[in-house]
Amino acid sequence: MSHPTTRLDDTIHQRARLGILAVLAESRRADFNYLRGALELTDGNLSRHLKVLEDAGYVRIEKTFEAKRPRTWASATRRGRDAFAAEIGALRALIERLDGTEATAKGKTVVQ
Amino acid sequence: MSHPTTRLDDTIHQRARLGILAVLAESRRADFNYLRGALELTDGNLSRHLKVLEDAGYVRIEKTFEAKRPRTWASATRRGRDAFAAEIGALRALIERLDGTEATAKGKTVVQ
Repeated sequence: MSHPTTRLDDTIHQRARLGILAVLAESRRADFNYLRGALELTDGNLSRHLKVLEDAGYVRIEKTFEAKRPRTWASATRRGRDAFAAEIGALRALIERLDGTEATAKGKTVVQ
Repeated sequence: MSHPTTRLDDTIHQRARLGILAVLAESRRADFNYLRGALELTDGNLSRHLKVLEDAGYVRIEKTFEAKRPRTWASATRRGRDAFAAEIGALRALIERLDGTEATAKGKTVVQ
């Protein structure tokens, strides 16, 4: 059986992008300032990672005006939610594997 | 409270490196060929990521000869095990947060 980490998707697994999709999994949409604060990212970092997710078809970006001030909203696409669910599934499998082996496999030498 | 993803360490969070440390958490040491097969990496990729982990002080590399054939062994240092445990703790927190909010927060608009 493949190791659970082989199922991780580099596009989503990256720390900031995982955070963005985690926030968007909890909400219909989130605005740029909220994401920046919640994930402790700089403007430039957040923009860059949103762009990667948008290019992958995982996130939709929408610009609105409220009281003449521009706001940028991000939401997860269906594809983004599916990819995020797959990532969380792989992380769950990794953790379950560690929990299962922790007690028995210590000290074993792994040899092919 | 900070989002759990802000606690992820870029050195360890990377897919291949997370896999290496996960295998090493389950064993005293693992040889290069075993890691390459288990994690489905190329020689070049595995070497590169082992080097990053070695430079960070998370992994120790040891070369031995058996029946005149060289073998490369990797093992996690104490520091590597601690950093891996912190990563798994952050991933657990992320998953618990998702499990806790899934039922209630759908459709919420996140605004600061």
